[in-house]
Amino acid sequence: MTAVVYGVGSSPYAKQPERSAADLVAEAVLEALTDADVTSVDAVYVGTVFGAPGVAQRSLHPLGIVDVPVLAIENACASGTSAFHEARAAILAGRYERVLVVGIETMTARFGGAIHPELTDAEGRQGLALPSLYAMAATRYLRDGAVTREQLALVSVKNHRHAIGNPRAHYSGEYTVEEVLGSRMIADPLTLLQCCPISDGAAAAVLGPRRGVSRDVPIRGSALRSGGLWDHRSSHVWGYQLVRDTAALAYEEAGIGPEDVDFFEVHDAFTIGEIVTTEALGLAEAGGGGALVESGHTSLGGAQPVNPSGGLLSRGHPLGCTGVAQVAEVVWQLRGEAGGRQVGGARVGVIETMGGGVSGIDGNGAVVAVLGG
Amino acid sequence: MTAVVYGVGSSPYAKQPERSAADLVAEAVLEALTDADVTSVDAVYVGTVFGAPGVAQRSLHPLGIVDVPVLAIENACASGTSAFHEARAAILAGRYERVLVVGIETMTARFGGAIHPELTDAEGRQGLALPSLYAMAATRYLRDGAVTREQLALVSVKNHRHAIGNPRAHYSGEYTVEEVLGSRMIADPLTLLQCCPISDGAAAAVLGPRRGVSRDVPIRGSALRSGGLWDHRSSHVWGYQLVRDTAALAYEEAGIGPEDVDFFEVHDAFTIGEIVTTEALGLAEAGGGGALVESGHTSLGGAQPVNPSGGLLSRGHPLGCTGVAQVAEVVWQLRGEAGGRQVGGARVGVIETMGGGVSGIDGNGAVVAVLGG
Repeated sequence: MTAVVYGVGSSPYAKQPERSAADLVAEAVLEALTDADVTSVDAVYVGTVFGAPGVAQRSLHPLGIVDVPVLAIENACASGTSAFHEARAAILAGRYERVLVVGIETMTARFGGAIHPELTDAEGRQGLALPSLYAMAATRYLRDGAVTREQLALVSVKNHRHAIGNPRAHYSGEYTVEEVLGSRMIADPLTLLQCCPISDGAAAAVLGPRRGVSRDVPIRGSALRSGGLWDHRSSHVWGYQLVRDTAALAYEEAGIGPEDVDFFEVHDAFTIGEIVTTEALGLAEAGGGGALVESGHTSLGGAQPVNPSGGLLSRGHPLGCTGVAQVAEVVWQLRGEAGGRQVGGARVGVIETMGGGVSGIDGNGAVVAVLGG
Repeated sequence: MTAVVYGVGSSPYAKQPERSAADLVAEAVLEALTDADVTSVDAVYVGTVFGAPGVAQRSLHPLGIVDVPVLAIENACASGTSAFHEARAAILAGRYERVLVVGIETMTARFGGAIHPELTDAEGRQGLALPSLYAMAATRYLRDGAVTREQLALVSVKNHRHAIGNPRAHYSGEYTVEEVLGSRMIADPLTLLQCCPISDGAAAAVLGPRRGVSRDVPIRGSALRSGGLWDHRSSHVWGYQLVRDTAALAYEEAGIGPEDVDFFEVHDAFTIGEIVTTEALGLAEAGGGGALVESGHTSLGGAQPVNPSGGLLSRGHPLGCTGVAQVAEVVWQLRGEAGGRQVGGARVGVIETMGGGVSGIDGNGAVVAVLGG
C-alpha cells in the first residue's frame, strides 16, 4: 500500500488580519478538493499552533465538511507536517479512503508584531523568544568558524530570489548580501531579512490510497520525532540531531539517500536554520552548510535546490500552515506546475519541519517526508 | 489484533492552580507507567484544549520521555478520548508497541471563575457560553415534557453521591433534590450543582497489543465523529444525534448493544447532558432519560450505573483530561479496584465524551469506546 497526495491548495501567505481562519481555510480546501477531483472526505487532520479551540470544526462546517472525524494537532512549527504524517498513517492503516489535511494559522490578528514568549518555559521567562534561540545557534556556528555572516545572508538572498517566482509568497525580491546584513538587527547576528515574517495563511492536501491517476504524488516515506535531551554543551546546535535522526528514518523508509533527492522544502525560519538543516539532511557535513549555499548547489538552477518556494523566510511562516504549504509546493514541483520557480527534472522532493523551543530538549518535534519518485 | 490498556493513573481532580501542567502530568504518568509495568513508550498522544503550545513536550521532558513522536490533540471536551482513540488506532495499525495517552488541563490558573466565550463563534459573541447552550437544551426538554426539574436534579444527587467513594473526585456529598434546585442559578434551569466545576488535572493510560497479562483491559470498540449540521429546528437537541451515531459505530465494532454494558462513564458536564446522553446511548428512548434516572437504573446498585466515578459534575471536568480520566475509571472498575464506588460484576464499560459549541453543527466531536469483556 502506498498513500498518495491527490490534490493541494492554499491561500496566499501574507499579513491578512481581516480574513478569518474559516475564510483562509475555505480558499485552501476548495482548491485542494478541486485539484484532487474529490467531493467528500472521510476524516480531517488540522495542524495549528495558536488556533482557538474548535478552529478546525468552525472552519470546515461552512464547507459542509461535517459528520466525520476532525482533529486539531499541535506540534509547534511541525504541526502541519504532523497532521500530514498522521493522515498518511491513517491511509496506510486502511482507516479511511480520503483524508483532508489542513494547516491554518492566523498570526497577525493575534500577535501583531511578534509572538509572545511562553512564560511556562524557562527561556520564555528570560525573554528568549525564537529569534534569540536561533541567534545562539548562529553565534556558536560563527565562533566555531562553521559559517560566515555572509553565508548566512546568502540564504536570505537565495530564498527571496526564489520567491519572485511564487505568486503566493509573502515577500520576495532581489537583495544583496550587504542589504541583508544591513537590515535592522533582530537578534545578533540575525538581521530582519534573516528572520521569517509573521504571516497568515492556510494550506490543504487530500490524501488517499493509489487510484491510478498519474498526477497523484506518492508519499514514499515520512517520519516524526520529538527531540532528545539537549543543552548548550551538546555536540551539535539545537535541532541538528533531531532533524538528522528524523531524516534517517524517512530516507530508510523511502529507500533513498539525500543524493537521490532533487529538491528540498525545509524549515528556514531563520537563515541559520536552513544552514543547520541542510547539514542534518545530509547535503553537507556538519559545518559545511555555509559553503554549500555559497556554492550555488542549493539555488534554483543548482544541483539540489533548497526552498524553491522561497521557504519560510520569503513564502512566509504561518506556523501550523507551514508544513502543509511545503507539501503543496512539493506536489506542484513534482507535477511540473511550479511556474517561474520550477525545479528542472524534479522527481523526488523532501519536506522538513522542526519546531519548538522547550527547555532541555532538541526541539519539540520534527517531521521529514519523501514525496515523488 | 486487539489493543489493550496496560495501566492507568491520574492526579487528583481539584482546583490546584499552584500546580503546573508538568507537575500534574508527572503524577498521572508515573502512576500509569508503574501500573502498566512499563518503563518506556514509543509514542505519546496528549489531549488538551487550552494547553499552551508545547505543553506536551514541556510536561514529558522532565520524565525523560523524549525522542519519540509526541502530539497534542484538540477536539473540545472530547480531546482526551480523541487522543485515546488515535493511540488505539496506532496500536491496531502496528505503528507502535507501547503508546502513552495523556489528558491535561490547567483551568483555574487560566480562567479563574469561568471559561471565556470564544469570540470567533456566533454564540460566543452573544455571550452564550457552554452553560447557556446546555440550558437551552434543558429548556426544550422541559417544554416538551421530556424531563422535570426534579429529574434533572436527580442526576446531580446521584453523581455527587457516587463521588463519595472516589478519593480523587473534585466534589462529593449527599445532596437533596431541594438543595440542588435551591443552589445558585447559573443558566435557567441549570443551578450551580447541575454544572461541572472548573477543575485542574491530568490522567494517563498506557496502551499496547495483548501481552497475556490478565489485568490488562481490552478495547473492544472505539468511534470518533464530528457533528452533522444542526440548528434549533433539528429533531433532537444539540449533541443527541452525534452521540447516537458515534455510539452505533462503537457498539457495532464491539459486537454488543447497550443492554450488554454493565456501566457507563459519560459526559455529564451539566445534568441535562447526562439525560440526553443516556438516551443517545440507547439506555432509554428519546425523552426517557429523566424517568431512567428516577428509576434508579443508573445509580450504583442499579442495573446499569452511569458515572460511578461521580462524572464531570462531581469528579470534575479538566477539559482535555476528562476523557482519559474516564478511561482510568473504567479500567479500575473492570479490574475491581474501584473501592467504595465499585460496580458489582463489572465486565463491560463504555466511555462517552461530547464537546464543543460551534455554531451550526451538532457538537465539535464525540468519542464512544467499549472496554472490557
